[in-house]
Amino acid sequence: MESKGISQAVVSRLPRYFRYLGELKDEGVERISSQELSELMHVTASQIRQDFNNFGGFGQQGYGYNVEYLYKEIGKILGLDRTHNFIIIGAGNLGRALGNYLNFERRGFLFKGMFDQKPELIGQFVRGVQVRPMSEIEEFVKENDIEIAVLTIPKTGAVDVADRLVKNGIRAIWNFAHVDLNVPDGIQVENVHLSDSLMKLSYNINRFSDN
Amino acid sequence: MESKGISQAVVSRLPRYFRYLGELKDEGVERISSQELSELMHVTASQIRQDFNNFGGFGQQGYGYNVEYLYKEIGKILGLDRTHNFIIIGAGNLGRALGNYLNFERRGFLFKGMFDQKPELIGQFVRGVQVRPMSEIEEFVKENDIEIAVLTIPKTGAVDVADRLVKNGIRAIWNFAHVDLNVPDGIQVENVHLSDSLMKLSYNINRFSDN
Repeated sequence: MESKGISQAVVSRLPRYFRYLGELKDEGVERISSQELSELMHVTASQIRQDFNNFGGFGQQGYGYNVEYLYKEIGKILGLDRTHNFIIIGAGNLGRALGNYLNFERRGFLFKGMFDQKPELIGQFVRGVQVRPMSEIEEFVKENDIEIAVLTIPKTGAVDVADRLVKNGIRAIWNFAHVDLNVPDGIQVENVHLSDSLMKLSYNINRFSDN
Repeated sequence: MESKGISQAVVSRLPRYFRYLGELKDEGVERISSQELSELMHVTASQIRQDFNNFGGFGQQGYGYNVEYLYKEIGKILGLDRTHNFIIIGAGNLGRALGNYLNFERRGFLFKGMFDQKPELIGQFVRGVQVRPMSEIEEFVKENDIEIAVLTIPKTGAVDVADRLVKNGIRAIWNFAHVDLNVPDGIQVENVHLSDSLMKLSYNINRFSDN
Protein backbone atom coordinates (compact mmCIF):
# COMPACT_ATOMS: atom_id res chain seq x y z
CA MET A 1 0.00 0.00 0.00
CA GLU A 2 1.38 3.39 -0.94
CA SER A 3 0.09 5.15 2.12
CA LYS A 4 2.86 4.19 4.54
CA GLY A 5 4.66 7.11 6.06
CA ILE A 6 2.01 9.64 5.07
CA SER A 7 1.92 12.52 7.54
CA GLN A 8 -1.15 12.95 9.71
CA ALA A 9 -1.51 16.45 8.27
CA VAL A 10 -2.12 14.93 4.84
CA VAL A 11 -4.44 12.31 6.36
CA SER A 12 -6.42 15.08 8.04
CA ARG A 13 -7.08 16.67 4.68
CA LEU A 14 -8.30 13.49 2.94
CA PRO A 15 -11.85 13.50 4.40
CA ARG A 16 -12.30 17.05 3.15
CA TYR A 17 -11.26 16.08 -0.37
CA PHE A 18 -13.60 13.13 -0.11
CA ARG A 19 -16.48 15.39 0.94
CA TYR A 20 -15.95 17.88 -1.90
CA LEU A 21 -15.54 15.14 -4.50
CA GLY A 22 -18.72 13.45 -3.26
CA GLU A 23 -20.59 16.71 -3.75
CA LEU A 24 -19.14 17.21 -7.24
CA LYS A 25 -20.08 13.64 -8.14
CA ASP A 26 -23.64 14.19 -6.88
CA GLU A 27 -23.81 17.33 -9.03
CA GLY A 28 -22.82 15.27 -12.08
CA VAL A 29 -19.35 16.79 -12.53
CA GLU A 30 -17.15 14.26 -14.33
CA ARG A 31 -13.74 15.92 -14.45
CA ILE A 32 -12.05 18.63 -12.44
CA SER A 33 -8.60 20.22 -12.65
CA SER A 34 -6.46 20.79 -9.59
CA GLN A 35 -6.92 24.52 -10.30
CA GLU A 36 -10.72 24.28 -10.17
CA LEU A 37 -10.60 22.10 -7.08
CA SER A 38 -8.21 24.60 -5.53
CA GLU A 39 -10.65 27.49 -6.05
CA LEU A 40 -13.55 25.48 -4.70
CA MET A 41 -11.73 24.31 -1.58
CA HIS A 42 -9.65 27.42 -0.89
CA VAL A 43 -6.36 25.53 -0.85
CA THR A 44 -3.55 25.95 -3.36
CA ALA A 45 -3.42 23.72 -6.46
CA SER A 46 0.13 22.85 -5.52
CA GLN A 47 -1.04 21.60 -2.11
CA ILE A 48 -3.64 19.41 -3.81
CA ARG A 49 -1.08 17.94 -6.22
CA GLN A 50 1.40 17.33 -3.40
CA ASP A 51 -1.25 15.64 -1.28
CA PHE A 52 -2.39 13.42 -4.14
CA ASN A 53 1.19 12.55 -5.10
CA ASN A 54 1.46 10.75 -1.77
CA PHE A 55 -0.92 8.21 -3.26
CA GLY A 56 0.50 8.02 -6.76
CA GLY A 57 -1.16 11.17 -8.09
CA PHE A 58 -4.47 9.61 -9.17
CA GLY A 59 -3.59 9.86 -12.85
CA GLN A 60 -4.28 13.51 -13.54
CA GLN A 61 -4.13 14.21 -17.27
CA GLY A 62 -3.97 17.60 -18.93
CA TYR A 63 -7.72 17.82 -18.62
CA GLY A 64 -7.90 17.10 -14.89
CA TYR A 65 -9.00 14.35 -12.53
CA ASN A 66 -11.84 11.93 -13.10
CA VAL A 67 -14.14 12.89 -10.20
CA GLU A 68 -15.77 9.51 -9.66
CA TYR A 69 -12.46 7.65 -9.81
CA LEU A 70 -10.80 10.09 -7.43
CA TYR A 71 -13.75 9.91 -5.02
CA LYS A 72 -13.60 6.10 -4.98
CA GLU A 73 -9.82 5.96 -4.61
CA ILE A 74 -9.76 8.39 -1.70
CA GLY A 75 -12.64 6.44 -0.15
CA LYS A 76 -10.57 3.24 -0.39
CA ILE A 77 -7.56 4.95 1.17
CA LEU A 78 -9.81 6.08 4.01
CA GLY A 79 -10.95 2.49 4.51
CA LEU A 80 -14.52 3.25 3.43
CA ASP A 81 -14.67 0.32 1.02
CA ARG A 82 -15.37 -1.97 3.94
CA THR A 83 -17.57 -1.77 7.03
CA HIS A 84 -16.45 -0.95 10.56
CA ASN A 85 -18.54 -2.01 13.54
CA PHE A 86 -18.65 0.43 16.41
CA ILE A 87 -20.10 0.70 19.89
CA ILE A 88 -20.85 3.78 21.95
CA ILE A 89 -19.96 3.88 25.64
CA GLY A 90 -22.25 6.38 27.32
CA ALA A 91 -25.95 6.73 26.51
CA GLY A 92 -26.26 10.39 27.43
CA ASN A 93 -27.13 13.19 25.02
CA LEU A 94 -23.87 13.08 23.10
CA GLY A 95 -23.89 9.28 22.82
CA ARG A 96 -27.45 9.40 21.54
CA ALA A 97 -26.60 12.12 19.04
CA LEU A 98 -23.76 10.03 17.62
CA GLY A 99 -25.88 6.87 17.60
CA ASN A 100 -28.54 8.68 15.62
CA TYR A 101 -26.14 10.15 13.10
CA LEU A 102 -27.14 8.37 9.89
CA ASN A 103 -24.23 9.75 7.92
CA PHE A 104 -21.87 7.34 9.67
CA GLU A 105 -23.81 4.36 8.35
CA ARG A 106 -23.67 5.72 4.81
CA ARG A 107 -19.88 5.60 5.15
CA GLY A 108 -19.85 2.02 6.39
CA PHE A 109 -19.63 2.69 10.13
CA LEU A 110 -22.21 0.40 11.70
CA PHE A 111 -23.68 1.19 15.11
CA LYS A 112 -23.82 -2.17 16.92
CA GLY A 113 -24.00 -1.60 20.65
CA MET A 114 -24.41 0.98 23.39
CA PHE A 115 -23.42 0.82 27.04
CA ASP A 116 -24.08 2.85 30.15
CA GLN A 117 -23.82 2.44 33.88
CA LYS A 118 -27.05 4.22 34.78
CA PRO A 119 -29.73 1.58 35.59
CA GLU A 120 -32.50 3.85 34.26
CA LEU A 121 -30.92 3.97 30.80
CA ILE A 122 -30.27 0.24 30.45
CA GLY A 123 -32.82 -1.42 28.20
CA GLN A 124 -33.70 1.79 26.35
CA PHE A 125 -33.32 1.84 22.58
CA VAL A 126 -31.31 4.28 20.49
CA ARG A 127 -31.96 3.78 16.76
CA GLY A 128 -32.82 0.12 17.36
CA VAL A 129 -29.81 -0.56 19.54
CA GLN A 130 -30.49 -1.47 23.15
CA VAL A 131 -28.47 0.10 25.94
CA ARG A 132 -26.57 -2.59 27.89
CA PRO A 133 -24.82 -2.51 31.28
CA MET A 134 -21.10 -1.76 31.30
CA SER A 135 -20.37 -5.24 32.64
CA GLU A 136 -21.25 -6.70 29.24
CA ILE A 137 -18.69 -4.67 27.26
CA GLU A 138 -15.95 -7.33 27.13
CA GLU A 139 -18.19 -10.13 25.93
CA PHE A 140 -19.97 -7.94 23.40
CA VAL A 141 -16.77 -6.59 21.86
CA LYS A 142 -15.35 -10.08 21.41
CA GLU A 143 -18.50 -11.65 20.03
CA ASN A 144 -19.52 -8.90 17.62
CA ASP A 145 -16.29 -8.06 15.84
CA ILE A 146 -16.25 -4.51 17.19
CA GLU A 147 -13.44 -2.40 15.82
CA ILE A 148 -14.19 1.09 17.09
CA ALA A 149 -15.41 2.30 20.49
CA VAL A 150 -16.82 5.79 20.89
CA LEU A 151 -16.27 7.14 24.41
CA THR A 152 -18.81 9.71 25.56
CA ILE A 153 -18.49 9.12 29.30
CA PRO A 154 -17.07 11.49 31.92
CA LYS A 155 -13.32 11.55 32.22
CA THR A 156 -13.31 9.78 35.59
CA GLY A 157 -14.33 6.47 34.04
CA ALA A 158 -12.80 6.86 30.60
CA VAL A 159 -9.24 5.70 31.28
CA ASP A 160 -10.41 2.48 32.93
CA VAL A 161 -12.95 1.71 30.21
CA ALA A 162 -10.35 2.38 27.50
CA ASP A 163 -8.06 -0.20 29.13
CA ARG A 164 -10.85 -2.78 29.17
CA LEU A 165 -11.67 -2.11 25.52
CA VAL A 166 -8.07 -2.41 24.40
CA LYS A 167 -7.61 -5.69 26.31
CA ASN A 168 -10.58 -7.12 24.48
CA GLY A 169 -9.48 -6.35 20.98
CA ILE A 170 -10.78 -2.87 20.16
CA ARG A 171 -8.66 -1.34 17.38
CA ALA A 172 -9.61 2.31 17.71
CA ILE A 173 -11.10 4.75 20.19
CA TRP A 174 -12.99 7.86 19.19
CA ASN A 175 -12.60 9.78 22.40
CA PHE A 176 -15.04 12.51 23.45
CA ALA A 177 -14.13 12.15 27.14
CA HIS A 178 -12.27 15.19 28.41
CA VAL A 179 -9.06 13.30 29.15
CA ASP A 180 -6.06 12.08 27.16
CA LEU A 181 -5.85 8.30 26.87
CA ASN A 182 -2.59 6.40 26.89
CA VAL A 183 -3.02 3.27 24.80
CA PRO A 184 -0.56 0.72 23.40
CA ASP A 185 1.04 1.27 19.97
CA GLY A 186 -1.19 0.16 17.16
CA ILE A 187 -4.39 1.27 18.89
CA GLN A 188 -5.73 4.38 17.18
CA VAL A 189 -7.13 7.26 19.18
CA GLU A 190 -8.88 10.27 17.72
CA ASN A 191 -9.75 12.91 20.32
CA VAL A 192 -12.67 15.30 20.04
CA HIS A 193 -12.23 17.56 23.05
CA LEU A 194 -15.23 19.84 22.62
CA SER A 195 -14.26 22.31 25.35
CA ASP A 196 -10.81 22.70 23.77
CA SER A 197 -12.42 23.61 20.46
CA LEU A 198 -14.67 26.17 22.14
CA MET A 199 -11.73 27.71 23.99
CA LYS A 200 -9.82 28.10 20.76
CA LEU A 201 -12.80 30.01 19.39
CA SER A 202 -12.86 32.19 22.46
CA TYR A 203 -9.13 32.94 22.09
CA ASN A 204 -9.64 34.03 18.52
CA ILE A 205 -12.60 36.25 19.42
CA ASN A 206 -10.45 37.98 22.04
CA ARG A 207 -7.53 38.40 19.72
CA PHE A 208 -9.68 40.14 17.13
CA SER A 209 -11.25 42.40 19.76
CA ASP A 210 -7.84 43.79 20.61
CA ASN A 211 -6.85 44.61 17.06
CA MET B 1 -1.57 42.22 24.15
CA GLU B 2 1.34 39.89 23.51
CA SER B 3 -0.67 37.30 21.69
CA LYS B 4 -0.71 38.90 18.25
CA GLY B 5 0.77 36.78 15.54
CA ILE B 6 0.66 33.58 17.57
CA SER B 7 0.28 30.59 15.26
CA GLN B 8 -2.93 28.59 15.39
CA ALA B 9 -0.84 25.52 16.22
CA VAL B 10 0.21 27.17 19.49
CA VAL B 11 -3.36 28.34 20.12
CA SER B 12 -4.58 24.76 19.61
CA ARG B 13 -2.31 23.58 22.40
CA LEU B 14 -3.36 26.20 24.96
CA PRO B 15 -6.64 24.50 26.00
CA ARG B 16 -4.73 21.31 26.72
CA TYR B 17 -2.25 23.16 28.96
CA PHE B 18 -5.21 24.79 30.65
CA ARG B 19 -6.84 21.40 31.24
CA TYR B 20 -3.73 19.82 32.75
CA LEU B 21 -2.99 22.85 34.92
CA GLY B 22 -6.58 22.85 36.17
CA GLU B 23 -6.18 19.24 37.22
CA LEU B 24 -2.87 19.93 38.94
CA LYS B 25 -4.42 22.86 40.76
CA ASP B 26 -7.35 20.69 41.89
CA GLU B 27 -4.85 18.15 43.19
CA GLY B 28 -3.18 20.86 45.27
CA VAL B 29 0.05 21.02 43.25
CA GLU B 30 1.61 24.46 43.69
CA ARG B 31 4.64 24.39 41.42
CA ILE B 32 5.69 22.36 38.42
CA SER B 33 8.80 22.39 36.23
CA SER B 34 8.58 22.29 32.45
CA GLN B 35 10.25 18.86 32.71
CA GLU B 36 7.52 17.49 34.99
CA LEU B 37 4.80 19.04 32.85
CA SER B 38 6.50 17.53 29.81
CA GLU B 39 6.37 14.01 31.26
CA LEU B 40 2.76 14.42 32.30
CA MET B 41 1.59 15.75 28.94
CA HIS B 42 3.87 13.71 26.66
CA VAL B 43 5.26 16.77 24.89
CA THR B 44 8.87 17.95 25.06
CA ALA B 45 9.92 20.46 27.72
CA SER B 46 11.38 22.58 24.94
CA GLN B 47 7.98 22.69 23.19
CA ILE B 48 6.37 23.84 26.43
CA ARG B 49 8.95 26.58 26.97
CA GLN B 50 8.64 27.72 23.35
CA ASP B 51 4.85 27.82 23.59
CA PHE B 52 4.92 29.77 26.84
CA ASN B 53 7.56 32.19 25.52
CA ASN B 54 4.96 33.41 23.03
CA PHE B 55 3.21 34.93 26.01
CA GLY B 56 6.23 36.21 27.90
CA GLY B 57 7.25 32.90 29.46
CA PHE B 58 5.05 33.11 32.60
CA GLY B 59 8.01 33.79 34.81
CA GLN B 60 9.47 30.34 35.27
CA GLN B 61 12.14 30.33 37.95
CA GLY B 62 14.68 27.62 38.67
CA TYR B 63 12.01 25.82 40.66
CA GLY B 64 9.34 25.85 37.98
CA TYR B 65 6.01 27.49 37.24
CA ASN B 66 3.43 28.55 39.80
CA VAL B 67 0.51 26.30 38.82
CA GLU B 68 -2.29 28.59 39.92
CA TYR B 69 -0.76 31.65 38.29
CA LEU B 70 -0.08 29.78 35.05
CA TYR B 71 -3.62 28.36 35.02
CA LYS B 72 -5.11 31.83 35.48
CA GLU B 73 -2.88 33.47 32.90
CA ILE B 74 -3.61 30.87 30.23
CA GLY B 75 -7.30 31.18 31.10
CA LYS B 76 -7.08 34.94 30.50
CA ILE B 77 -5.31 34.43 27.17
CA LEU B 78 -8.11 32.05 26.17
CA GLY B 79 -10.66 34.72 27.04
CA LEU B 80 -12.08 32.72 29.96
CA ASP B 81 -11.90 35.66 32.36
CA ARG B 82 -15.12 36.99 30.87
CA THR B 83 -18.41 35.42 29.82
CA HIS B 84 -19.48 34.62 26.26
CA ASN B 85 -23.16 34.26 25.40
CA PHE B 86 -23.99 31.58 22.88
CA ILE B 87 -27.01 30.22 21.03
CA ILE B 88 -27.49 26.83 19.43
CA ILE B 89 -29.12 26.54 16.01
CA GLY B 90 -30.64 23.08 15.73
CA ALA B 91 -32.48 21.37 18.60
CA GLY B 92 -31.74 17.81 17.50
CA ASN B 93 -29.68 15.32 19.47
CA LEU B 94 -26.37 17.07 18.97
CA GLY B 95 -27.77 20.51 19.77
CA ARG B 96 -29.32 19.12 22.95
CA ALA B 97 -26.10 17.39 23.92
CA LEU B 98 -24.19 20.67 23.60
CA GLY B 99 -26.90 22.64 25.40
CA ASN B 100 -26.71 20.22 28.31
CA TYR B 101 -22.95 20.28 28.55
CA LEU B 102 -22.39 21.93 31.92
CA ASN B 103 -18.66 22.20 31.42
CA PHE B 104 -19.13 25.09 29.00
CA GLU B 105 -20.85 27.14 31.67
CA ARG B 106 -18.02 26.51 34.13
CA ARG B 107 -15.74 28.14 31.55
CA GLY B 108 -17.98 31.17 31.11
CA PHE B 109 -19.84 30.10 27.97
CA LEU B 110 -23.49 30.84 28.71
CA PHE B 111 -26.25 29.01 26.85
CA LYS B 112 -28.85 31.69 26.06
CA GLY B 113 -31.03 30.54 23.19
CA MET B 114 -31.92 27.63 20.93
CA PHE B 115 -33.57 27.65 17.50
CA ASP B 116 -35.08 25.05 15.21
CA GLN B 117 -37.37 24.98 12.21
CA LYS B 118 -39.36 21.89 13.25
CA PRO B 119 -42.72 23.03 14.69
CA GLU B 120 -42.84 20.06 17.07
CA LEU B 121 -39.59 21.14 18.75
CA ILE B 122 -40.48 24.80 19.18
CA GLY B 123 -41.50 25.58 22.73
CA GLN B 124 -39.63 22.62 24.23
CA PHE B 125 -37.04 23.31 26.91
CA VAL B 126 -33.39 22.27 26.91
CA ARG B 127 -31.75 23.02 30.26
CA GLY B 128 -34.19 25.85 30.90
CA VAL B 129 -33.81 27.37 27.45
CA GLN B 130 -36.87 27.36 25.23
CA VAL B 131 -36.58 26.36 21.58
CA ARG B 132 -37.61 29.26 19.31
CA PRO B 133 -38.48 29.41 15.61
CA MET B 134 -35.69 30.26 13.18
CA SER B 135 -37.44 33.49 12.23
CA GLU B 136 -36.55 34.95 15.64
CA ILE B 137 -32.79 34.48 15.26
CA GLU B 138 -31.97 38.02 14.10
CA GLU B 139 -33.88 39.80 16.83
CA PHE B 140 -32.63 37.48 19.55
CA VAL B 141 -28.98 37.84 18.56
CA LYS B 142 -29.18 41.61 18.57
CA GLU B 143 -31.10 41.92 21.83
CA ASN B 144 -29.18 39.40 23.91
CA ASP B 145 -25.57 40.27 23.18
CA ILE B 146 -24.91 36.90 21.55
CA GLU B 147 -21.30 36.38 20.55
CA ILE B 148 -21.14 32.73 19.50
CA ALA B 149 -23.56 30.62 17.43
CA VAL B 150 -23.31 26.86 17.46
CA LEU B 151 -24.53 25.33 14.18
CA THR B 152 -25.88 21.79 14.49
CA ILE B 153 -28.20 21.88 11.48
CA PRO B 154 -27.87 19.93 8.21
CA LYS B 155 -25.50 21.37 5.66
CA THR B 156 -28.29 22.48 3.32
CA GLY B 157 -29.41 25.26 5.65
CA ALA B 158 -26.10 26.05 7.31
CA VAL B 159 -24.62 28.48 4.78
CA ASP B 160 -27.74 30.63 4.70
CA VAL B 161 -28.09 30.68 8.48
CA ALA B 162 -24.42 31.57 8.89
CA ASP B 163 -24.95 34.59 6.61
CA ARG B 164 -27.91 35.75 8.67
CA LEU B 165 -25.96 35.36 11.90
CA VAL B 166 -22.97 37.29 10.60
CA LYS B 167 -25.18 40.12 9.34
CA ASN B 168 -26.66 40.46 12.80
CA GLY B 169 -23.44 40.75 14.72
CA ILE B 170 -22.38 37.22 15.63
CA ARG B 171 -18.62 37.16 16.25
CA ALA B 172 -17.94 33.44 16.00
CA ILE B 173 -19.47 30.26 14.65
CA TRP B 174 -18.83 26.84 16.11
CA ASN B 175 -19.75 24.78 13.09
CA PHE B 176 -20.89 21.16 13.37
CA ALA B 177 -22.68 21.30 9.99
CA HIS B 178 -20.94 19.14 7.42
CA VAL B 179 -20.02 22.05 5.16
CA ASP B 180 -17.29 24.68 5.05
CA LEU B 181 -18.53 28.21 5.73
CA ASN B 182 -17.14 31.26 3.99
CA VAL B 183 -17.44 34.21 6.33
CA PRO B 184 -16.00 37.73 6.30
CA ASP B 185 -12.60 38.43 7.88
CA GLY B 186 -12.86 38.93 11.59
CA ILE B 187 -15.59 36.33 12.05
CA GLN B 188 -14.16 33.26 13.73
CA VAL B 189 -15.14 29.79 12.61
CA GLU B 190 -14.17 26.60 14.35
CA ASN B 191 -15.24 23.47 12.48
CA VAL B 192 -16.05 20.17 14.12
CA HIS B 193 -16.67 17.85 11.19
CA LEU B 194 -17.47 14.64 13.01
CA SER B 195 -17.48 12.41 9.93
CA ASP B 196 -14.03 13.71 8.97
CA SER B 197 -12.71 12.75 12.37
CA LEU B 198 -14.19 9.26 12.07
CA MET B 199 -12.71 8.81 8.58
CA LYS B 200 -9.28 9.75 9.86
CA LEU B 201 -9.66 7.02 12.46
CA SER B 202 -10.68 4.56 9.78
CA TYR B 203 -7.64 5.49 7.66
CA ASN B 204 -5.34 4.84 10.58
CA ILE B 205 -6.97 1.47 11.36
CA ASN B 206 -6.41 0.42 7.76
CA ARG B 207 -2.84 1.59 7.69
CA PHE B 208 -1.97 -0.47 10.77
CA SER B 209 -3.74 -3.54 9.37
CA ASP B 210 -1.40 -3.51 6.39
CA ASN B 211 1.82 -3.30 8.38
